[in-house]
Amino acid sequence: MTRPATRTQVGIVGAGPAGLMLAHLLHRAGIDSVAVDSRSREEIEHTHRAGILERDSVRMLVDTDVSDRVLREGYQHEGIALRFNGVSHRIDFQDLVGASVWLYPQTDVFVDLANARDRDGGDVRFGVGDTRVVDTTSDRPGILCTDADGVEQEIRCDILVGADGSRSMTRHEVTDRRQYHREYPFAWFGILCEAPPSAPELIYTRSDRGFALISQRTDAIQRMYFQCPPDEKVDDWSSDRIWGELQTRLAGEDGFSLKEGRILEKSVLPFRSFVCEPMRYGNLLLAGDAAHTVPPTGAKGLNLALADVRVLAEVLEQVIVRGKREALDDYTPRALARVWKAQHFSYWMTTMLHASGDASEFDVRRQLGELEAVTGSAHGAAYLAEAYTGWPRA
Amino acid sequence: MTRPATRTQVGIVGAGPAGLMLAHLLHRAGIDSVAVDSRSREEIEHTHRAGILERDSVRMLVDTDVSDRVLREGYQHEGIALRFNGVSHRIDFQDLVGASVWLYPQTDVFVDLANARDRDGGDVRFGVGDTRVVDTTSDRPGILCTDADGVEQEIRCDILVGADGSRSMTRHEVTDRRQYHREYPFAWFGILCEAPPSAPELIYTRSDRGFALISQRTDAIQRMYFQCPPDEKVDDWSSDRIWGELQTRLAGEDGFSLKEGRILEKSVLPFRSFVCEPMRYGNLLLAGDAAHTVPPTGAKGLNLALADVRVLAEVLEQVIVRGKREALDDYTPRALARVWKAQHFSYWMTTMLHASGDASEFDVRRQLGELEAVTGSAHGAAYLAEAYTGWPRA
Repeated sequence: MTRPATRTQVGIVGAGPAGLMLAHLLHRAGIDSVAVDSRSREEIEHTHRAGILERDSVRMLVDTDVSDRVLREGYQHEGIALRFNGVSHRIDFQDLVGASVWLYPQTDVFVDLANARDRDGGDVRFGVGDTRVVDTTSDRPGILCTDADGVEQEIRCDILVGADGSRSMTRHEVTDRRQYHREYPFAWFGILCEAPPSAPELIYTRSDRGFALISQRTDAIQRMYFQCPPDEKVDDWSSDRIWGELQTRLAGEDGFSLKEGRILEKSVLPFRSFVCEPMRYGNLLLAGDAAHTVPPTGAKGLNLALADVRVLAEVLEQVIVRGKREALDDYTPRALARVWKAQHFSYWMTTMLHASGDASEFDVRRQLGELEAVTGSAHGAAYLAEAYTGWPRA
Repeated sequence: MTRPATRTQVGIVGAGPAGLMLAHLLHRAGIDSVAVDSRSREEIEHTHRAGILERDSVRMLVDTDVSDRVLREGYQHEGIALRFNGVSHRIDFQDLVGASVWLYPQTDVFVDLANARDRDGGDVRFGVGDTRVVDTTSDRPGILCTDADGVEQEIRCDILVGADGSRSMTRHEVTDRRQYHREYPFAWFGILCEAPPSAPELIYTRSDRGFALISQRTDAIQRMYFQCPPDEKVDDWSSDRIWGELQTRLAGEDGFSLKEGRILEKSVLPFRSFVCEPMRYGNLLLAGDAAHTVPPTGAKGLNLALADVRVLAEVLEQVIVRGKREALDDYTPRALARVWKAQHFSYWMTTMLHASGDASEFDVRRQLGELEAVTGSAHGAAYLAEAYTGWPRA
């Protein structure tokens, strides 16, 4: 049984933060869209991911009227610490570049966006099956799928957007794509635990045993990570072993004390870099993780997806409202300029803070020399702070 | 035939820029020294090396009354260019950090220092043979050697200094030393040529075929380099081939034109990083290349040697004039803090600008992303400028 095709201006595959933010921005520009996602809304609400929003990501949520909940329930962080040789060195974002980041989980960003779509009467279809995109180079491309009841759906549009995450199906339509990869010889072991915060801001730690990150979630729940081999098994790590490892990596001489608590969740986060170029094929455009993945060091993933979407909404407004089809050509270069800077930043933060199995003693000393140089220089610290809080818009 | 031992306060092995600058600073502090070198004065005067002096290196020459010739005959450079994707991006040192560097060859620094030692009646012995250091842990260490006539010489002192360059003999006395190495899979092919300057400042160039550096010497003589394999043979490179390679690497779209001319000299410069730790053993202290080598990218070698010597002169004044022997313990940590920052800076400049045979396409794009990030950010550019013109004194 086939229902008559839905007609819309922009068809969006993927209703995570990137897809929904795009639908929201398009709505504000008077452009209709339909977004579909194979996951249920509940499933996405429980996909725990990044928790650090750049200044402009927060502005996008607040200034475009998604929600100001981030300002009320998120935590403004005016800096981070880089910790090495047992001492924390604060990078004061406000002082250095006049900016902050906000601790606010990706799941809350999603909830805010999904609520805004509801409020504004957006057409968002969760839990669809057998999704395919068709006729991507024609002037009437489409999304085919089945709804939750198994009924076939057809959505025809002017422009298709693939915002379907790192395992993107739409990416494969970009038949002339080049894919750039980098694998890292480690992963992050992450825990969620019931404990008071050990510090008011994130602590990025370099130790001889490898990287560790002390993060926060709420006043009662904390998020922490430590570098591990890519094939590490969660079950091999008892609570005692986890706390022992974290305490050793955070040990120092400056009075810092890591507060322990019941571990609620354990997982191993993969670690890789990926870029797909171009980010467009005919009338299909890719956004967010569908086009690129960054390692988690530096928290650029979600922010980069939102930056893509900001550029994409501007481009689509040119194309659809103003009839300037040539604006489609701007998307890949504008988006990728930021992507490669973010890839470099993530690589830089990673290599500056992680232990590499094949590092020589020279490399280890040089790494400490770099940490001294960055934290000891207002210019070095500001360069890091600017990237961490987000470069100006392209 | 043995002459009676010469008695002095500081015995210095090596009369290159590091050894002579130390002797000069000690003289100003009222401390006697004798410096010996196996090379003749003429030989050192014709050892062409680095040509970029940090701000504080220039100040050291001028303010301690070695000579102000650098200000009259050197060239003040208020910036450099980073060139990639066929476009030069200027790093404006004055604007970013209020500092300059000076183009002034190492051989001229040596001549100025040797003349100052003559002027001040310094005891500097060139062309000695069979140099050995003895009794380094006793309170009366010594240098044994033969003079140019084959007569045995003995110099007894309170403190010995090894400033005998990268093939240091004195280093081997530091029996508890740890040595940190890094090899690079390339070298620099350098030429000296008769041509007008192609640019007023140095151009550090990243191209798909590898690094190139356009430097200057005088209004009529230029110095240029390009990345080559470590085993490259000078004779395989005709003038035509050299100019073809340089023109290709410098090619671009911003009107830059590389001026060619007769090639006066060709050589392949080795490329490695090395640090010896500690820089002291008993009453022997190492300075400059004897303790560390940096790759030429970033021009830190001579500047680091002069920075060592500045710290060392302060330490020796504490020890010899004020009787604070415990000051000897300060030397290694104070000197090495700067050395490791410089090792990182040299590594950073090298990896940001050179082509690596095993670089993936991802690495190449990320490298370009870094160059965009550094040149596109006032903070990134200032971080580079601060390191290039020289960090503040330790």
